[in-house]
Amino acid sequence: MKALVWHDRGDLRIEDIPEPPDPGPGEAVVQVAFCGICGTDIHEYTDGPVLIRTRPHPLTGAVPPLALGHELSGRVVALGSPVEGLDTDARVTVDPCWTCGICYWCRRGEYHICKLGGAVGLASNGALAEYVTVPLSGLVPLPSNVDDRIGALVEPLAVGLHAVTRGGVRPGDNVLISGFGPIGAAVLLSAVVAGAATVLVSEPLPGRQASALTLGATDVLDPGELDVRREAFRRTGGIGPDVVFECSGVPALLPAAISTVRRGGRVVVTTVGHGAGEVKTNDVVLYERTVIGSLGYQHDLPRVVDLLASGRLSADALVTSVVPLEEAVAGAFDVLVADRGSQLKVLVEVGG
Amino acid sequence: MKALVWHDRGDLRIEDIPEPPDPGPGEAVVQVAFCGICGTDIHEYTDGPVLIRTRPHPLTGAVPPLALGHELSGRVVALGSPVEGLDTDARVTVDPCWTCGICYWCRRGEYHICKLGGAVGLASNGALAEYVTVPLSGLVPLPSNVDDRIGALVEPLAVGLHAVTRGGVRPGDNVLISGFGPIGAAVLLSAVVAGAATVLVSEPLPGRQASALTLGATDVLDPGELDVRREAFRRTGGIGPDVVFECSGVPALLPAAISTVRRGGRVVVTTVGHGAGEVKTNDVVLYERTVIGSLGYQHDLPRVVDLLASGRLSADALVTSVVPLEEAVAGAFDVLVADRGSQLKVLVEVGG
Repeated sequence: MKALVWHDRGDLRIEDIPEPPDPGPGEAVVQVAFCGICGTDIHEYTDGPVLIRTRPHPLTGAVPPLALGHELSGRVVALGSPVEGLDTDARVTVDPCWTCGICYWCRRGEYHICKLGGAVGLASNGALAEYVTVPLSGLVPLPSNVDDRIGALVEPLAVGLHAVTRGGVRPGDNVLISGFGPIGAAVLLSAVVAGAATVLVSEPLPGRQASALTLGATDVLDPGELDVRREAFRRTGGIGPDVVFECSGVPALLPAAISTVRRGGRVVVTTVGHGAGEVKTNDVVLYERTVIGSLGYQHDLPRVVDLLASGRLSADALVTSVVPLEEAVAGAFDVLVADRGSQLKVLVEVGG
Repeated sequence: MKALVWHDRGDLRIEDIPEPPDPGPGEAVVQVAFCGICGTDIHEYTDGPVLIRTRPHPLTGAVPPLALGHELSGRVVALGSPVEGLDTDARVTVDPCWTCGICYWCRRGEYHICKLGGAVGLASNGALAEYVTVPLSGLVPLPSNVDDRIGALVEPLAVGLHAVTRGGVRPGDNVLISGFGPIGAAVLLSAVVAGAATVLVSEPLPGRQASALTLGATDVLDPGELDVRREAFRRTGGIGPDVVFECSGVPALLPAAISTVRRGGRVVVTTVGHGAGEVKTNDVVLYERTVIGSLGYQHDLPRVVDLLASGRLSADALVTSVVPLEEAVAGAFDVLVADRGSQLKVLVEVGG
């Protein structure tokens, strides 16, 4: 079957690889319709291996070369164990977390921070391929009014919903999102659903500024043109935002997020990024701020599907480009590397 | 009346100052029995002005010279407004926060982060004096089985109870306290009351190590002798502590606290300290850790008094020295500056 395979940093290939074997217990095989490209995939391309392990993954045993892709929709073609209410042919999206199931965290339902955890497309062959093996427990059926294209957005949207849940956004809250890539966008959509009164977005790239307004931001603040902290303060009646989401992926911006949130407010850090920020403890203590890490999702995908099905969440505008699998290296990866600001979510049409 | 007055950095004087005037509405005058010395007082002595303002305080109008002291017990001698159930002559301890009462935070009961807030002994004449003016709303009656000496410990104990509450310590949790000064000690006592199964203390000074064991620490880890992170990990079944309390006052130790707490765990930063720590955002995001600022107390003093009265909390061992007011500069401040490791809580006997 055709797949987009990571061989090494800078070395992605469209090539033929064997179809997945029959699924084992706890596994399923999905015929992929669409697969989105994540910032993580780009990092593996430009700076990898980052999350890909070059020695056998402790859970899956996988080593590169590996097909990338973990934001998928498709059709179940084989189930490794029977699942009540789910048959082959079901249309699904997938929570791609491989988990050990027995560690301290898995037993508490915190499977997303499983000590050995990995993801489809990083710890096993991914969904930028015609077929993919996924965790059976990760299958989430798609209702008829959520099409395959939108189904592939459920995973990144779940990152936003999880962050908004971790941040405890309440109806009427004032929110600031720092950095408007795909995660910032997913946070915006979930913050609006959660009833945020004001959602300000701090973003320097004009293309992304426009997207933020299209997707429902109250206003966009350009950090190149004004003092975001002062402006956010002014726009919130001199109080400051209740929650600041640090979605820029730039660790050095963490201190600014902390000093911008109101006394007693919460900063949610959503993006993986190498490096550190110089955090003044007095900025945390004297104002009783809280800094909250948010990693991926935790049982959030079914909630996103319900929101999409009910019409409370509309995500069409996230998709800025759809590319066939055969053209995905030049038409998606290289485009995102060259000019990320022009894109939000790029989907690869695999079998859609 | 006699008072210990801060004139400037390095300049504390025992001198006569006028007795407080009749209390205005919302104020009370207390005849001081005992007053404890806080790390904040020491900082004002060695490095001040830190929290003391040299221009008129926006709430109180006070300027130095000022009598220090905000950890007090005593007897009410005058009430500026009538208080149901409280008469003059009542034995009390005091929540020393001056608050504006009308800001965003005061109206939400978060008076401890009032935008204009200050404290008795920093924003007005303090309790290292025979009489002191305090906020009426801060009066907390002492029951007969909590004596004046212990009554002066309620305020620092409330700092510990507030931190333990902010950290969400649950029965059976494993806790690590980094730094065992008076705040670390107060956190230890509250963590034990909250049902922590294990309370490890990281502390380099031998005198404080001994105090930690006396006060109920499960064990003391000497950061000069072993790798505290690894040892805490080993002592908690390979999981890591549920909550780490950063009580060292050294901002550079924040990153170590973050990397020591378990996946999904919480770091509570309790101490004011100038400077910053290099926080890797991946240490926060990839393990979904939370960093929580904890400032002083918020309605915690009455809870401490109830715990003391019920016998659930015993604080006698916190007191390492009692000094009369006349000797407090040389006998208390200079001793604490010269060798803080030998002391936990030093009380000044004013009128006890």
